[in-house]
Amino acid sequence: MHALSSHTLINGVSSDQVSVQDRGLLYGDGVFRTLRLQDGCLQHWDRHYRKLQQDCSKLHIQCPEQKLLYEELLTLTKRGPNGIAKIIITRGQQTAHGYRPVQNLSPTRILKMVPLFSYPGRYASQGIKARICNLRLSHQPYLAGIKHLNRLENVLAAAECDDPDIAEGVLLDVYGNVIEGLRSNLFMVRDGELVTPALCNCGVAGIQRERVMEWADTYNVSCRVRQLDLAELLAADEIFLVNSVFGLWPVHELSGRRWNDHPISMQVQGWVNHAQD
Amino acid sequence: MHALSSHTLINGVSSDQVSVQDRGLLYGDGVFRTLRLQDGCLQHWDRHYRKLQQDCSKLHIQCPEQKLLYEELLTLTKRGPNGIAKIIITRGQQTAHGYRPVQNLSPTRILKMVPLFSYPGRYASQGIKARICNLRLSHQPYLAGIKHLNRLENVLAAAECDDPDIAEGVLLDVYGNVIEGLRSNLFMVRDGELVTPALCNCGVAGIQRERVMEWADTYNVSCRVRQLDLAELLAADEIFLVNSVFGLWPVHELSGRRWNDHPISMQVQGWVNHAQD
Repeated sequence: MHALSSHTLINGVSSDQVSVQDRGLLYGDGVFRTLRLQDGCLQHWDRHYRKLQQDCSKLHIQCPEQKLLYEELLTLTKRGPNGIAKIIITRGQQTAHGYRPVQNLSPTRILKMVPLFSYPGRYASQGIKARICNLRLSHQPYLAGIKHLNRLENVLAAAECDDPDIAEGVLLDVYGNVIEGLRSNLFMVRDGELVTPALCNCGVAGIQRERVMEWADTYNVSCRVRQLDLAELLAADEIFLVNSVFGLWPVHELSGRRWNDHPISMQVQGWVNHAQD
Repeated sequence: MHALSSHTLINGVSSDQVSVQDRGLLYGDGVFRTLRLQDGCLQHWDRHYRKLQQDCSKLHIQCPEQKLLYEELLTLTKRGPNGIAKIIITRGQQTAHGYRPVQNLSPTRILKMVPLFSYPGRYASQGIKARICNLRLSHQPYLAGIKHLNRLENVLAAAECDDPDIAEGVLLDVYGNVIEGLRSNLFMVRDGELVTPALCNCGVAGIQRERVMEWADTYNVSCRVRQLDLAELLAADEIFLVNSVFGLWPVHELSGRRWNDHPISMQVQGWVNHAQD
C-alpha cells in the first residue's frame, strides 16, 4: 500500500482512493476545509465545522456529525503534533446517471493530514508582494461564499503567473470589484477603519475573515463589509490577507504601490495567531 | 473486485478508483465527454475527440492521444454493441499542495461504459415537456463552451424539480438570456430560420450543436448564433434540444406554451440520427 494511505481516511477507512462514481469527481459536487493542526490542537475546529455544515446545507449535502469527523481527524494526528488537515465532503457515490442528485445519498468524507507548509518568515513579518489576477470571478449568488469543489477559476488564476516573488494573487470580479485573495480573504485599512469585500456574488467566506471581524468588534474598530474597487484598494493605508494556513500576511507591494508599515495589520495578526476561539 | 471495475479503465488499467490527490476531485480540474456506442460504433468519435482536445487545450491539460483513447474504449465495447461511453480527462495527480498546476503533469484518463439510458420513445417522436430553471448561469468567458468538471450549477438546477413529466430544464444566464438545456444544446426555429444561443459567456458547446449547424449549411437553411431572450424563445415556431445521448428532442411544452408540430425539428432529427459524420 502507498505510503500516503496512512495519512488519509475515506469514510473512516485508511485509503487514498475514491470511486469514479463519486459526485465530487464527476461534478465537483462537494465542499472542503483546510485547517491547521498546531501543538496537537485542530485550530478553530468548532468554527471550521460550523462553516462546513453551513456549506453542506447550502448544497443540500448531508454533513457528517462533528464528533465523527473530530474523532477521525484525531487518528490522523498521531504522526505528529503539527500539520495541515484537509476535509473534503462530497455528496457521495451515485450509480444513477446524471446531474440530479439521488435523495439521501450517503456523503463521502475524505480526511487528509499533510506536513505544515513552510513559507518564508518575512511574509508574515514584513509582508508579501501580491498581484492582480487577470481572471475575473463570475457572479453566482447560489454558490457565493461556499468553499465548494468547483475551483477552476482559482486554478486558472493561479496558473497565470510563475514569479516566485509573488506570494498571492488578488481576485477581482467581472465588474472589477476586489473580492479576495486566491486562497485567502482580503481586508484593507483606511483611516483606522477595516473594509472587506462583500461576498454575495462570488468568493469564499473563510473563518479567519469572520475572526478578523470579531477582532474589530472586540476592539471597537469599525469594520465594513461592502463593495470595494481597485482604485480604492490601492489607496489603502494597509492591506492584509488571512487564511487558516498562513494566518495573516500584510501586503507589502501590489500593482506598483508599496506599503512599508502595517501597524493595524500587525495588531490583528497578533490576535489571529494567539486568540484561541 | 467490484462488478463495475470491468467497465472502467483508469489510465488503461481496470479499476473504479482514483487517487484523492487527483485534481479532478480536488478542484474539478478536468473535462469530459459522453458518447454513444451504437451497433459497435463510437458515434462521431472524431468530433468528440477534437472537442476533447480543444477543451483540454483551453485548460492547458495534456490531452491523451486519440489512438490510445480509441483503443482503450474498444476494450470496453466487448460486453455488447450498445452503450454510453464516458471519458473524463483530469489534469492528473499532484502531491504538491495548491491550485497552481505543476507543469507537465500526466493527465488521468477515466473511461467508462454503461448501458444505454432508456427514454420514452415519445420524447423523440412527439416532443418533451421542459421547464425554465430558476438557477441562472454565471458569466465566465474563460470557461464558456468547455465541458469541464465544474458542474455545480447543473447539479443545483437539476435538483430544483422532481416532476417526472419534465424531461429537461432550460438554463438562462444571469441576464435572462436563453443559453442551453441542462444537458443539451438548444435551437429555436422561427420563420424557417434556426437560432441557437451564443456561448461566449457560459454554456457547453456540444458536438450535436455543431452538427445541426452543418445540417443547416448543407440544406441552405439560415442558422444564426446570437443572444436570445425568453420572450423570443416562447414565440418560436419550434424548439428542439440536442445531445450525443438522446439525439434530438422537440419541445412540446414550455412555460405554458405548447407546440404540436415540429416539421423542421423532425427533418433535423432524421439527419442527426442517421448521418454518419
